[in-house]
Amino acid sequence: LRVITLTTDFGYKDPYVAEMKAVILSINPNVTLVDISHEVKRHDIYHAAYLLLTSCKYFPLGAIHVVVVDPGVGGLRKSIVIRTRRFTFIGPDNGVLFPAAVEDGILEIREIRNPILLRRKVTSTFHGRDIFAPIAAYLSLGIDVKHVGPRLSIGEVRKLYLPKAIVIDDNTICANIIHIDNFGNVITNVKERQFADFLGKASFIEISTKSARFVVPVVKTYSEVEEGSLLALINSEGFLEISVNKGAASEVLNVKRGGKIYIRRKYDSAF
Amino acid sequence: LRVITLTTDFGYKDPYVAEMKAVILSINPNVTLVDISHEVKRHDIYHAAYLLLTSCKYFPLGAIHVVVVDPGVGGLRKSIVIRTRRFTFIGPDNGVLFPAAVEDGILEIREIRNPILLRRKVTSTFHGRDIFAPIAAYLSLGIDVKHVGPRLSIGEVRKLYLPKAIVIDDNTICANIIHIDNFGNVITNVKERQFADFLGKASFIEISTKSARFVVPVVKTYSEVEEGSLLALINSEGFLEISVNKGAASEVLNVKRGGKIYIRRKYDSAF
Amino acid sequence: LRVITLTTDFGYKDPYVAEMKAVILSINPNVTLVDISHEVKRHDIYHAAYLLLTSCKYFPLGAIHVVVVDPGVGGLRKSIVIRTRRFTFIGPDNGVLFPAAVEDGILEIREIRNPILLRRKVTSTFHGRDIFAPIAAYLSLGIDVKHVGPRLSIGEVRKLYLPKAIVIDDNTICANIIHIDNFGNVITNVKERQFADFLGKASFIEISTKSARFVVPVVKTYSEVEEGSLLALINSEGFLEISVNKGAASEVLNVKRGGKIYIRRKYDSAF
Repeated sequence: LRVITLTTDFGYKDPYVAEMKAVILSINPNVTLVDISHEVKRHDIYHAAYLLLTSCKYFPLGAIHVVVVDPGVGGLRKSIVIRTRRFTFIGPDNGVLFPAAVEDGILEIREIRNPILLRRKVTSTFHGRDIFAPIAAYLSLGIDVKHVGPRLSIGEVRKLYLPKAIVIDDNTICANIIHIDNFGNVITNVKERQFADFLGKASFIEISTKSARFVVPVVKTYSEVEEGSLLALINSEGFLEISVNKGAASEVLNVKRGGKIYIRRKYDSAF
Repeated sequence: LRVITLTTDFGYKDPYVAEMKAVILSINPNVTLVDISHEVKRHDIYHAAYLLLTSCKYFPLGAIHVVVVDPGVGGLRKSIVIRTRRFTFIGPDNGVLFPAAVEDGILEIREIRNPILLRRKVTSTFHGRDIFAPIAAYLSLGIDVKHVGPRLSIGEVRKLYLPKAIVIDDNTICANIIHIDNFGNVITNVKERQFADFLGKASFIEISTKSARFVVPVVKTYSEVEEGSLLALINSEGFLEISVNKGAASEVLNVKRGGKIYIRRKYDSAF
Repeated sequence: LRVITLTTDFGYKDPYVAEMKAVILSINPNVTLVDISHEVKRHDIYHAAYLLLTSCKYFPLGAIHVVVVDPGVGGLRKSIVIRTRRFTFIGPDNGVLFPAAVEDGILEIREIRNPILLRRKVTSTFHGRDIFAPIAAYLSLGIDVKHVGPRLSIGEVRKLYLPKAIVIDDNTICANIIHIDNFGNVITNVKERQFADFLGKASFIEISTKSARFVVPVVKTYSEVEEGSLLALINSEGFLEISVNKGAASEVLNVKRGGKIYIRRKYDSAF
């Protein structure tokens, strides 16, 4: 059973997700469909890229990942398939597939052009159903990716990079908030290795937002601090995360996805 | 693998969806379950009928569509199965199945009566689990529909019709808003063919709501107008849709599902 | 095909649900995954316990139920597997599995300890993905539960009991509100048998909340009263439920989950 995953901003109050699944199952009834999310924020390719990047690597070898967050549907942007070391990514050429594909190692990029592998009538407003769903279904049946259309060089596709945390000086990192999760955990782009090197033997960090400063212990798990207290840890995705035990750090810090914070090394909890 | 789809207003904070799936899988573990939506507005059979009508046709031949939007559960309304050219529809006889079934071509209607095909104890508050789920599961196993209960004539079931757009004069259509989607797109009941005949060589329409008028270009896709601008197009379901490129037309027009708008043909963008 | 169910408070805006499913499918691609809910209120083990208790019994024999509502993740709480007469329950030892497991009949409890059955790197913040998902997948492949780790006695695990309704005097029950559903139905812990004994030949009850009293008919189904009117019935889960026909009883009564109400037997509708 091949796995096809779906990531969209469609929600579940409309028929769109069901239509995509219906098209896929009509072509390959033996596929396993997994929803990564249909609650991507409307048109937010950064949100979708983050979900795909963090989750795709856990899927079985050969999984096909379809993303439809596509504000430019029907315009000039291309429709593409990216084959990587372990997976196949399908979606609009707006960068949304890029971070996940790069991390897995891009082998080949194709522009979707072959009308035989699409729905007979391709609308200009719903490529998820008319282009990406049938392509995913045919590839899940074992059709070679060369049939979808001509090769593109990496120079021909849109890039999207998650920002990198910047070491400002020996003592300070400028980090970006790349995601705030359902629990209010504030996830930064500081990676495990980078953070370990930075932290050294310190066991606290000072976090500066636009309007306030906090000194926070660096721990392994939420319950090491009292309920309602701030903490920092390397989370399950390998990123530095600022959290509150049984609370929402995003509210305590008063920050949003996309914001910046400055992180300084501290050897004790004093301000 | 037979497909059974589910459309309900249950949401996911309660055990009801899981109970239906559990009952189905207990009878036929080899079925493919697809959620069309569990976020139908509470008791809103028009919303459910729209989702079913628009999405059901993409499913594989033989798919079984179960709908449980059922404010009259346990009362006098019948429980029915409608067999159409390609599908089987199961649900309460409140009209919710009707538009989709009519469009596919009704072959046979049965009232659900045979207690052998139901859960042993049928509650009067959850027919989705106790009646519709087991009937769907048994039919997916190949049991003949004649076993569910006696035939009903089409005169004996509740009808529900989506309103039809009315051509008022050579120059004006009165349209109904049949759905507003997650993106704020305003979907009317004007169909592709009707609109093409009406529009002729004009390339704009004037839209009159209760409180305002807008002149809008008729285009093929969202990105043909500037971000934030209104447009009209035939959408992926074949209906006339009023949209805003990367915005929410429902907010700009200030309209709701069920409302009326008047559409006039225009040859230029002047008011 | 074995069924694995998932119940979490993760929502669908994060990659966490997808990561769990990905891990499961990587170990056993032939499993049927069913979402009981991912909309459990954040950290609310009572909500999760209610969903599991009410829905698990409808699943096929041998179903594996995974629950990840786990505010103490990474702390001292154990990770456990409970084998019952018909099912296997997997989750944190915080009581969330307990009501459902007790009701089905506990046969054996194991602490999860065997690193060979976990992900190679177990993070301290996401046991759902790193511990519970792989254990569920391996058990679904037929691995004997004895391999997960040492036996625990029932005295060694956390208990959680749904409160019991108390008969205060011949005429009065003190009931707890154990759930309010998507329709605003107020579900109490008064069970069918207990209520029948209490009600006798009466056909009304008086409900006292903190701030008001209501006299309500006891009926079989919602549509027996006028739209907008209160009613009481034994619901599809076997609990006494206070409802409003096509309305939300929780708003009319102004009550919340966890609150108490007093119920008195009445022979007519007079106050």
